[in-house]
Amino acid sequence: MAFADRLNKVETSAIRELFKLLGQPGIISFAGGFPDSALFDVEGISEASHKALNTQPGAALQYGATEGFEPLRESLARFMAGKGAGEVAASDLIVTTGSQQALDLLGKTLIGPGDKVIVEGPTFLATIQCFRLYGAELVSAPIDGDGVQTDRLEQLMVEHKPKFVYLIPTFGNPSGAMLSAERRKRILELAVAHNTIIVEDDPYGDLYFDAPPPPSLLALSAQVPGSRDLLVHCGSLSKVLSPGLRIGWMIGPAELLAKATMCKQFSDAHTSTFAQATAAHYLQAGHMPATLEKVRKVYAGRAQAMGDALRRELGSAVSFVQPQGGLFVWARLTGAGGSLQDGHVYARQAIAQGVAFVPGAPFYCSQPDPATFRLSFATASEEKILEGVSRLARAL
Amino acid sequence: MAFADRLNKVETSAIRELFKLLGQPGIISFAGGFPDSALFDVEGISEASHKALNTQPGAALQYGATEGFEPLRESLARFMAGKGAGEVAASDLIVTTGSQQALDLLGKTLIGPGDKVIVEGPTFLATIQCFRLYGAELVSAPIDGDGVQTDRLEQLMVEHKPKFVYLIPTFGNPSGAMLSAERRKRILELAVAHNTIIVEDDPYGDLYFDAPPPPSLLALSAQVPGSRDLLVHCGSLSKVLSPGLRIGWMIGPAELLAKATMCKQFSDAHTSTFAQATAAHYLQAGHMPATLEKVRKVYAGRAQAMGDALRRELGSAVSFVQPQGGLFVWARLTGAGGSLQDGHVYARQAIAQGVAFVPGAPFYCSQPDPATFRLSFATASEEKILEGVSRLARAL
Repeated sequence: MAFADRLNKVETSAIRELFKLLGQPGIISFAGGFPDSALFDVEGISEASHKALNTQPGAALQYGATEGFEPLRESLARFMAGKGAGEVAASDLIVTTGSQQALDLLGKTLIGPGDKVIVEGPTFLATIQCFRLYGAELVSAPIDGDGVQTDRLEQLMVEHKPKFVYLIPTFGNPSGAMLSAERRKRILELAVAHNTIIVEDDPYGDLYFDAPPPPSLLALSAQVPGSRDLLVHCGSLSKVLSPGLRIGWMIGPAELLAKATMCKQFSDAHTSTFAQATAAHYLQAGHMPATLEKVRKVYAGRAQAMGDALRRELGSAVSFVQPQGGLFVWARLTGAGGSLQDGHVYARQAIAQGVAFVPGAPFYCSQPDPATFRLSFATASEEKILEGVSRLARAL
Repeated sequence: MAFADRLNKVETSAIRELFKLLGQPGIISFAGGFPDSALFDVEGISEASHKALNTQPGAALQYGATEGFEPLRESLARFMAGKGAGEVAASDLIVTTGSQQALDLLGKTLIGPGDKVIVEGPTFLATIQCFRLYGAELVSAPIDGDGVQTDRLEQLMVEHKPKFVYLIPTFGNPSGAMLSAERRKRILELAVAHNTIIVEDDPYGDLYFDAPPPPSLLALSAQVPGSRDLLVHCGSLSKVLSPGLRIGWMIGPAELLAKATMCKQFSDAHTSTFAQATAAHYLQAGHMPATLEKVRKVYAGRAQAMGDALRRELGSAVSFVQPQGGLFVWARLTGAGGSLQDGHVYARQAIAQGVAFVPGAPFYCSQPDPATFRLSFATASEEKILEGVSRLARAL
């Protein structure tokens, strides 16, 4: 069978192979990118779905507008405004089938074969593959504990003239890093100076632990004239409420949203109105603040437990920045005392000890750092985390 | 803003403009492609969603496999087998976000810029645009009352060596035509003879009126050695149960499904597990046969009412084949007695008389027949249909 050439651009075996081993009994998994399903507000979602089918069954089960179910667009606009994003109208956003679809629509709308796109190194694996399917040539901008390095980013923007820059500024996957307030503002200035679109992917921003992160690029764009017209913001209910609903959204310039809507029409017509009406009723019922408070508290405890255990048990053999939110610890094998420095080898040894995580190299679109690896603290209890980290120590 | 070149391939204004006029009060609409929301089994779906959230909330709200939620794949496999499709295993199909996404995945997986794809003339509008976004050059195969003309199809296959042939063999949109049993078998033979993939899009096959249509290409493939390996079958719950769930599926060769699954991973990760679990419980509860019986009966009555009224009121000014299933009457202005012969002009005159439908020309990827138009009998009561057809007569 002769497949389209674009498929040759994509490589998915790296992590998939490892995931096959996860089914073994007794494995403690730090490998997933999932929220903990024990935290889902099943009662609230059930009540919302009940209301959706009782009050407007026709609308909830019929075809709907490609842009999204109007009551949900309004609820999401209020949700964003409540997070300090300033004035957001329902018409400033479209609903997407998870934020993965927002990435796909950005690819379909903006990327032609050979176009350059700058992403963080490391960045979300499915972003790399998604953009490459549209022919993107990805350029990697280095990060540190404060997020992407803006000086290097500017050099790369000048050198590569990218179609856009894709960032996960807040508690990103896999880095967990939090972009500093200063760098956020600088990035908006770079967008204007180089007339370049910035995509802010923000599925984790609500999952902060002690203190809220700096304002989103979207919120800050009010302070940098011209930057809002170059900014795309992607949001999602997947990490804070439920991934199974597949509800994401994209805020952006009207012209871009119009093209993305046209593309979405031919991708899936619209996002499930059943799921959209359920999400709309959930948000309208005012459950979100309590839900966020609950998940933040649980993840904060787990992140602390993992960080403490890693420092205690692995000591100088790994380095990492203690996360201030999100789901991930991004760590690096230092090679201290002549120990292992390859994340992939370490992952195989860890599986043998009954603990799983994901090696870091595949998260780079180029120049991978093979000593890195990603640990998720989201789905294991604190007790399991302690046991898992002990196994990590043994594996080393 | 500089968009990707692929967007230049697509034109969406033709029908959109007309739809804007539909909001006017008092309009009787034969324009939609929707099922009637008054026929949705709200109670059954509500019960199914309740069960999904009560028995397996974690699974229904969590991330799921890209291929689809296993219990739904199993239910759909049984549903297909029950329709005479022969042995269908859960692993022979993947779940898609509506059958629109199946089209998108076929495009992404198979179509490169300049590749030829043969479609029926006329065919589903969103198929044309979807494939063109991937760079397809579409070739139109003529149809008659028995569906696509297989002699012409073979000539076109030889001449254009298409990547695949896309057909809606049973009560297609917009033609409503039912491909004859003889032609079905011939098409499978052509697939093998010319080593060409055939896509059978079948969202309407269950909506037959008096007697079931001939077996699907999928069912018949057992009789034509080698054809099953070249056949893709797309199904959907949208027209028979609810479009808002966005549940479609694609059956095809394993190699193609694997590639489509990879592409789907980067399109929307997976179809809403909440909607999938709901659909699975609905099918498992055994509601489908009664639901199908009910909608068939209502649509049969409306189709008959519309056909009778058209013959009575418009007489020789229009020609059409009385549909034996589906949602549409595909009609043609004959120009008898010097009357109008342009579907677009007629549509505007009809709107002025308070009745709406869609002109036929945009449904052709090339060489449109401007005298054609599409009437849907799905959403108006028989009484409204009579009134609407009277208005059609006045507009002529």
